[in-house]
Amino acid sequence: MSNIPDTPTAPVLHSRDPRGVVHLTMNRPQNFNALGEEMLAALQQALDAVARDGDARVVVLAAAGKAFCPGHNLKEMIARPDEAYYRALFAQCSRMMLSIQKLPVPVIARVQGMATAAGCQLVAQCDLAVASSEASFAVSGVNFGLFCATPSVPLLRNIGSKQAMEMLLTGDFINAEQALQRGLVNQVTAPDQLDAEVERLVQSILQKPRVAIAMGKELFYKQREMGIEAAYQLAGQAMAVNMMDACAQEGVSAFVEKRAPSWRPPQGGTGEHS
Amino acid sequence: MSNIPDTPTAPVLHSRDPRGVVHLTMNRPQNFNALGEEMLAALQQALDAVARDGDARVVVLAAAGKAFCPGHNLKEMIARPDEAYYRALFAQCSRMMLSIQKLPVPVIARVQGMATAAGCQLVAQCDLAVASSEASFAVSGVNFGLFCATPSVPLLRNIGSKQAMEMLLTGDFINAEQALQRGLVNQVTAPDQLDAEVERLVQSILQKPRVAIAMGKELFYKQREMGIEAAYQLAGQAMAVNMMDACAQEGVSAFVEKRAPSWRPPQGGTGEHS
Amino acid sequence: MSNIPDTPTAPVLHSRDPRGVVHLTMNRPQNFNALGEEMLAALQQALDAVARDGDARVVVLAAAGKAFCPGHNLKEMIARPDEAYYRALFAQCSRMMLSIQKLPVPVIARVQGMATAAGCQLVAQCDLAVASSEASFAVSGVNFGLFCATPSVPLLRNIGSKQAMEMLLTGDFINAEQALQRGLVNQVTAPDQLDAEVERLVQSILQKPRVAIAMGKELFYKQREMGIEAAYQLAGQAMAVNMMDACAQEGVSAFVEKRAPSWRPPQGGTGEHS
Repeated sequence: MSNIPDTPTAPVLHSRDPRGVVHLTMNRPQNFNALGEEMLAALQQALDAVARDGDARVVVLAAAGKAFCPGHNLKEMIARPDEAYYRALFAQCSRMMLSIQKLPVPVIARVQGMATAAGCQLVAQCDLAVASSEASFAVSGVNFGLFCATPSVPLLRNIGSKQAMEMLLTGDFINAEQALQRGLVNQVTAPDQLDAEVERLVQSILQKPRVAIAMGKELFYKQREMGIEAAYQLAGQAMAVNMMDACAQEGVSAFVEKRAPSWRPPQGGTGEHS
Repeated sequence: MSNIPDTPTAPVLHSRDPRGVVHLTMNRPQNFNALGEEMLAALQQALDAVARDGDARVVVLAAAGKAFCPGHNLKEMIARPDEAYYRALFAQCSRMMLSIQKLPVPVIARVQGMATAAGCQLVAQCDLAVASSEASFAVSGVNFGLFCATPSVPLLRNIGSKQAMEMLLTGDFINAEQALQRGLVNQVTAPDQLDAEVERLVQSILQKPRVAIAMGKELFYKQREMGIEAAYQLAGQAMAVNMMDACAQEGVSAFVEKRAPSWRPPQGGTGEHS
Repeated sequence: MSNIPDTPTAPVLHSRDPRGVVHLTMNRPQNFNALGEEMLAALQQALDAVARDGDARVVVLAAAGKAFCPGHNLKEMIARPDEAYYRALFAQCSRMMLSIQKLPVPVIARVQGMATAAGCQLVAQCDLAVASSEASFAVSGVNFGLFCATPSVPLLRNIGSKQAMEMLLTGDFINAEQALQRGLVNQVTAPDQLDAEVERLVQSILQKPRVAIAMGKELFYKQREMGIEAAYQLAGQAMAVNMMDACAQEGVSAFVEKRAPSWRPPQGGTGEHS
């Protein structure tokens, strides 16, 4: 399904299929896809490109090799003991993480192996996550004296407070099943079913109009931070605008008339979207 | 237990028994109790009446027929492609939803069947929810191009962020057991035990003084939106006022003296409350 | 492991072992360790002492006798029906609860029995909690007409909204397994394994530098109340400062060099920390 990438040695492989499915694959298996400066820059560049790509419909964020991502590149970090450098590094990383949330299309983490520290953060920051039963998760910076402060931001917005605190204080791993029960991932599959389960979510998203999902994702994260009355006000306005869109008018008409909307690609198909 | 309603053809059947138990039953099974203009207005009127009724103690929000509620009335909506109309409609619906939260008595959703879109929102917005094992839940507007923006508001305040996002993006159903595990409902029962389980919660609430519950419910939703220090300050003040109330003075005295408080109706009884 | 306390009749037994493990044990089993004025003052004094103790590393908050804590002392409360008194009492209790959150070291609740009302609040307010399978939890003030308003503050920050509301409205108990599933406690053990499980968490915390944990705990609760962008900004700054600390520089160097950091005490040992 993925195209052959143009540059097989790039830190992030970037492809888009005719359906608008973007595959971003972290491609430094030799260092477990650590988020060094090169990787962070490549991810930022790829996410910015998706933001500009009006034909993109969904992103699958994956990783080459056995591990998903171990977080920051500690070798790089220890070589530059400079607070200004660290501030810039964490700001760069946070900007990349927030780019995932700001993207108008959903981002699905495809987690085939270990995701630790900022690697676990990456999973938490994605809109959806599917994990292989062999995946495991930890915010383990505290093991070497560096509390996973930035990873705690999306982690706490995914799982319970005491569960997050235990992971952050102990650095202990949880397995895929525990990640599922706590809400860090959406689905757990056998390793050989991981792509099929990701594809199931992809298919479902492709059945929906891009504009409705873009509006909805933005609204979702905005209203999460608001009081309930303000949240309702914003949501009602967003929904009225959404309802005026041609896709919704066609979709609701089709529903009332008991037919498929004209914008929906055939189930399982690979046709162009509207 | 419910009285025979005066107007069996009303969109919402409204009765109150001598104990103060209000039954509101959505009564348009022929269109699955869709939240059309008539139904929204009837629910608002009923909730406003409960707000004025000093003898009401608890509301059971139920639905006639096989489905609980499918959300908005799409036929009505598609007939008026007008943004101002849609804004007014969603504002009307949000006002009704917030009326549930603002009511001084608890509202229990009795979910016997499918609850989708704004129907799922209704369940999420209630203080408590009991579901039949045959109930199912979805925020499925995205299937016809209308992202369930307003339903996402209470949904996200009930279940985890990734779980909510998956439901909103896919429109997929979850069953009653999944709704229970995620926190969307409080209890799941066999279909023929649904009323008994609702009655168990009703009984428990009737054992408590109205004033303590009214104060507590208001405080609960207010403090949910505050920082923890401000939340503690408000909660401490509310509790001091509550403790000065005659019911609490009698209740605490009774507890210390190992007797039942004078305001408590006999367990399982139908006597008047204090 | 705990030292013999100097004053075995004190309301709170306070000891610190050579590793920096502080044991605070509520010691009024004859009234189930109720949070009367004497107990609240003693807890506040003990927490303040820990805050000043630069050698403290972790606190285990335990209780003598069969119950953990039943909440406020109702006999004391009913004897003084005075709103100003109640306001001062709840303010004193809230200040003690917030002191747990503000402490630079983690606080682990060791829950061997019933924890009700402000006793359940105490468990919710601790950073971590380990419960015996014989423990049980309720916010039961509503049973005598006093809605558990202040307990609702940390409860709602631990468990789901509908689950919290049900506990607050019904006053019903949940058992240890339910508390675990909902996120109110971190672990449940057989009664005779309670100390071993607490010790496992203690050991894990002792392996980490005090400074990283102090910074991390403070950041965790601050960012929980912020919007995600502000949270990331604060977390990135905190992490850069943490990374400049000698412990993190040594820890990251050791990790890169595949050796144990010099500040780490031997696993299972009782040596002084760095």
